[in-house]
Amino acid sequence: MKYFIQRIDQYLAFFMVLAVISCNQPANQKETQISEQEAAAENTDPLPSWNEGNTKSAIISYVADVTNAASTSFIPVPDRIATFDNDGTLWSEQPVYFQLFFAMDRIKSLSADHPEWKNQQPYQAVLENDVKTLSTQGMKGLMEIIMASHAGITTDEFETTVKDWVATAKHPTKNRPFTELIYQPMLELLQYLRDNEFKTFIVSGGGIEFMRPWVESVYEIPKDQVVGSSIKTQYHYNNGSPIIERLPEMDFIDDREGKPVAINRFIGRKPVMAAGNSDGDLQMLQWTDSNNLTSLQLYVHHTDSVREWSYDRESRIGKFDKGLDEAHEKGWTVIDMQNDWKVIYPFELPQ
Amino acid sequence: MKYFIQRIDQYLAFFMVLAVISCNQPANQKETQISEQEAAAENTDPLPSWNEGNTKSAIISYVADVTNAASTSFIPVPDRIATFDNDGTLWSEQPVYFQLFFAMDRIKSLSADHPEWKNQQPYQAVLENDVKTLSTQGMKGLMEIIMASHAGITTDEFETTVKDWVATAKHPTKNRPFTELIYQPMLELLQYLRDNEFKTFIVSGGGIEFMRPWVESVYEIPKDQVVGSSIKTQYHYNNGSPIIERLPEMDFIDDREGKPVAINRFIGRKPVMAAGNSDGDLQMLQWTDSNNLTSLQLYVHHTDSVREWSYDRESRIGKFDKGLDEAHEKGWTVIDMQNDWKVIYPFELPQ
Repeated sequence: MKYFIQRIDQYLAFFMVLAVISCNQPANQKETQISEQEAAAENTDPLPSWNEGNTKSAIISYVADVTNAASTSFIPVPDRIATFDNDGTLWSEQPVYFQLFFAMDRIKSLSADHPEWKNQQPYQAVLENDVKTLSTQGMKGLMEIIMASHAGITTDEFETTVKDWVATAKHPTKNRPFTELIYQPMLELLQYLRDNEFKTFIVSGGGIEFMRPWVESVYEIPKDQVVGSSIKTQYHYNNGSPIIERLPEMDFIDDREGKPVAINRFIGRKPVMAAGNSDGDLQMLQWTDSNNLTSLQLYVHHTDSVREWSYDRESRIGKFDKGLDEAHEKGWTVIDMQNDWKVIYPFELPQ
Repeated sequence: MKYFIQRIDQYLAFFMVLAVISCNQPANQKETQISEQEAAAENTDPLPSWNEGNTKSAIISYVADVTNAASTSFIPVPDRIATFDNDGTLWSEQPVYFQLFFAMDRIKSLSADHPEWKNQQPYQAVLENDVKTLSTQGMKGLMEIIMASHAGITTDEFETTVKDWVATAKHPTKNRPFTELIYQPMLELLQYLRDNEFKTFIVSGGGIEFMRPWVESVYEIPKDQVVGSSIKTQYHYNNGSPIIERLPEMDFIDDREGKPVAINRFIGRKPVMAAGNSDGDLQMLQWTDSNNLTSLQLYVHHTDSVREWSYDRESRIGKFDKGLDEAHEKGWTVIDMQNDWKVIYPFELPQ
């Protein structure tokens, strides 16, 4: 229950941050600098969107070492498990987790069938973008919004709903589909790991059924390699046309201590590599760090206020404070987004 | 809670059946009949331990059809998900689920640290093999045995315990390690499916952490492709040496309606093929049968009282009653163990 409340606290930040959406920098202000020399090297470089430096070297040295059968650090293929957080690690998470835009949009699209919402909180506030009232609704009101937008339909219907939203919704300031706001350097890292027979998993605080409809085409990660938060579900025979119904009740919060627990349940094996970006990923990195096999811990540090966002210790979304201290203390690899990444998003790649 | 009680009811059968262990036929009484002609065909036959007939034809026709890009039934690779029950479908389950032998053995091995158990039920009855008293302990006593044998240690310790048990314990009448009591024809089917780019999963009522330590070497199924029942767990930082503790509390019963629910949670996609052997698998087969893609449902019917066991509608372990009716009604493929399988276990193969 403690983790649940922590998570809800993060969700609450959603409404507070809504007020400052307009403060963000427009995208693409900074021209990407890629020299001809670097472009020529791309054919053989497994991580072409990463600048040369300690971070890139650490990753490539690690993979080369643990896949070298002659190395004392060699890792057998079945143990090559790599887990990635999603929000802030594989795609952006500002001004709020993208799943919360989905929840708001869904409340609005459902409102035609719920005329009573016009005069009923917390729905009225969502429909009127009334941030001030929303912020007074507390956990109870917030849970109502989440359950009204995520439950009460079948799993098939929910999948269709998410696919439709992903195909049409756009980020309020970047003005791009949300699935374009993924990190090109991390896509390259995922592919590089798979080319070296690592099995790549998502382990996210986001909803497992919110991610699955699009992760295969966007990250090339199979649905069954996605771990996330979930609500309860129930099977109904339904006169020979079985359905699984999504119930308005939380089942599991895959955040903080929940991440190693979920890794153990879903994957059944301690990862040798883990990547995150916030204090919510700290336990996953600790768990991976305790592997007897040689392991690699990566933390994405959001340092680029021009091309993406810059935030860490004081942020309510993706707070990175204890994790940053522990990364320094333990010598984990911290990715400096501004300096380590040539481009942030795929659409910034030179055509 | 309803399913939980159903499951516990199955567990209770354990103690009742203990009394009749000695009734079983010794193994290997029937010589396997394999003609020279059949032996010659084995090199190209993907299912050499299956007799020719409707069952084998149904399986091979299905796989050939759905993997043929020119067929209207063609299934894209990511959708080639096949789920297999374990107890009674991939390995034997008589006279009781093998996991219950593990629980009993573990109580006995822990008893040195628990001298009080000598005079305390239900432990005393386990230690004295006192079936009569055990059968009077009810659900409360049974849960005590399960939790005492499966919880209170870390996940790493539990894995070691299972591995040690698997390496040393033997079946009471077959006098073989339990992991030798797997079905050779099903091993061939798993491999045949994988050769055709199906992803094979176990979806079992058995404990997920009881299966994972040995499934990779025995079935060649990765740990992360195992779905099962689970108890709750908790992460502890433990001063920098993190552990996951197994708590004495049920988390999820992966049986009956729980199977489609767990398939949805762990795999995130409706299977196109499912195999089971009891009423506990019926909902999984119904769920698979409702796939818009061409699907195959397999039910293993235990019909061989000489080489394995013969049981169905009246059995308390692996009861196969409603499932048998529905299989006939819907035209699902029922595997007649006695007639469809040339050998049951790998050790019966001609050397």
